[in-house]
Amino acid sequence: MENQFADRLIAAIQSKQTPLIVGLDPRWDQLPPAIRKDLEPADWNVKAAAYQQFCCEIIDAVCGMVPAVKPQAAFFEQLGPAGMAALAHVVDYAQQNQLLVIMDAKRGDIGSTAQAYAAGFLGRKPTSPWGCDSLTVNPYLGADSLQPFVEQCRITGAGIFVLVKTSNPGSQTLQEQVVESGTPVYQQVAQMVQELNSAHLGQHGYGSIGAVVGATYPQQLAELRQLMPNTIFLVPGLGAQGGTAADVAGGFDPQGLGAVVNSSRAIIFAYEREEYSGMNDWQAAVERATEETIAQLAEGTPAGQLRK
Amino acid sequence: MENQFADRLIAAIQSKQTPLIVGLDPRWDQLPPAIRKDLEPADWNVKAAAYQQFCCEIIDAVCGMVPAVKPQAAFFEQLGPAGMAALAHVVDYAQQNQLLVIMDAKRGDIGSTAQAYAAGFLGRKPTSPWGCDSLTVNPYLGADSLQPFVEQCRITGAGIFVLVKTSNPGSQTLQEQVVESGTPVYQQVAQMVQELNSAHLGQHGYGSIGAVVGATYPQQLAELRQLMPNTIFLVPGLGAQGGTAADVAGGFDPQGLGAVVNSSRAIIFAYEREEYSGMNDWQAAVERATEETIAQLAEGTPAGQLRK
Repeated sequence: MENQFADRLIAAIQSKQTPLIVGLDPRWDQLPPAIRKDLEPADWNVKAAAYQQFCCEIIDAVCGMVPAVKPQAAFFEQLGPAGMAALAHVVDYAQQNQLLVIMDAKRGDIGSTAQAYAAGFLGRKPTSPWGCDSLTVNPYLGADSLQPFVEQCRITGAGIFVLVKTSNPGSQTLQEQVVESGTPVYQQVAQMVQELNSAHLGQHGYGSIGAVVGATYPQQLAELRQLMPNTIFLVPGLGAQGGTAADVAGGFDPQGLGAVVNSSRAIIFAYEREEYSGMNDWQAAVERATEETIAQLAEGTPAGQLRK
Repeated sequence: MENQFADRLIAAIQSKQTPLIVGLDPRWDQLPPAIRKDLEPADWNVKAAAYQQFCCEIIDAVCGMVPAVKPQAAFFEQLGPAGMAALAHVVDYAQQNQLLVIMDAKRGDIGSTAQAYAAGFLGRKPTSPWGCDSLTVNPYLGADSLQPFVEQCRITGAGIFVLVKTSNPGSQTLQEQVVESGTPVYQQVAQMVQELNSAHLGQHGYGSIGAVVGATYPQQLAELRQLMPNTIFLVPGLGAQGGTAADVAGGFDPQGLGAVVNSSRAIIFAYEREEYSGMNDWQAAVERATEETIAQLAEGTPAGQLRK
């Protein structure tokens, strides 16, 4: 097996000295005018080309600063097959620029269908057409639905992040229901993920089966850090969704490892924010917002240890 | 709003006099030799073209007999962008042949990301690039994650099927956990879905927010029929997954409405089955298996009422 995902991710975090990752969530209405121009938005091919250009220029701007990017599959899928071709190009371009790619697609199914998703997304080209380093996965279908993804990770050295506790208010509907054992559903999922990791730890004590834990519930983040000592967290919700550096601090171990923190809109559409209005171009605003978010995480969380 | 999905589906069920739908799950190793030939399977474009041909020929064979087809997105996504282009073509071809298309992609995300999936998949071209009639959706992220899909259904006349109880053994892991109110998680989801329907019923008393309920748990199917009187069920698991007509009977109302039953492998790869080994070609085996499954459902379930 190749060097496993957990070790590759931690090496990249240490090399870039930050756990910040940048979410690639292209939205037509927010694209910088320099890219949107007067293009006809009803044409999927034109929109897809604009999304591709936008994401590749973000990659140019941030590839020296962060360990990974997280493309959001939904925005590309919204453009149909043309969007999916652009997504594949963006994945390639990120990897050519030494970024790990965590595909945020929240896939999940049973048996051989889960195996098809796993084989499609995880691993390296040409064996896997998408060739991502990691993939977000939905656990509602149960333990056996995760198994094909876990096996694909073992074979290819890729990783997954299983949804444990999401950052939306409605995550209470199911995830916080308390079951007979006295624990909420999300803790049941947490235990399942932790167990999947325990037999396959990398050099730093972390496995490649990660967990998505929202930044909007700081207490749960700290509590889950205890419950899942060998699991890397993917923490969305920083910035536009309201999470701050203090909110995500509980997700780290004392060495500043154990979590990556995602910011999407606050970075990729930074040109819209008043404090960056004087900048030359939108790419400069992306760079500045990335630098500032990295500094906030270094100051407000154990990730500051990475710089020592 | 257009004629809503529930009414269009029921009209198609009544017209074809059966609730059987055919799952389009292309798998390279099982493709008929006439399609697989000596093609080089490592080439994604070649594979995607073979999947497209296979699915379109199945559509030719079954379009006069069933109300809908259910493409499984995973098998197309496994081929990368080339597979997604083939999937879009298959959706078009099915609709040109007067079949409704239920996209089995089990998507789910929060807020504007869920909205992107909804806008991409649901509705008609060219507004929606995929233009499907319905989509399967995963409820783990909670009530607010379903809302963008529900709104898109209201706007476009499309439908969704929310995963309630799946057909795999591991569905016990989460779905059968009993919460404090004394009911299992899947019943909580069932209530949520039923409530989403109650204010928007079509001509036959059913709404367009459906539920996926596996055929492998006959008692739960009958119990959920009671709990969700206004909800159409999508019942997978007939045939290859072990479900029989008797197992799915509890999913119907006394008029034979309220459910569609999916069969994939047992129909599309019927040519592999010994009882069809004497047939001229694989398409003839597909037709025969479809006819026989329709007859079994008419005999063993209330769907027999559709022929009266």
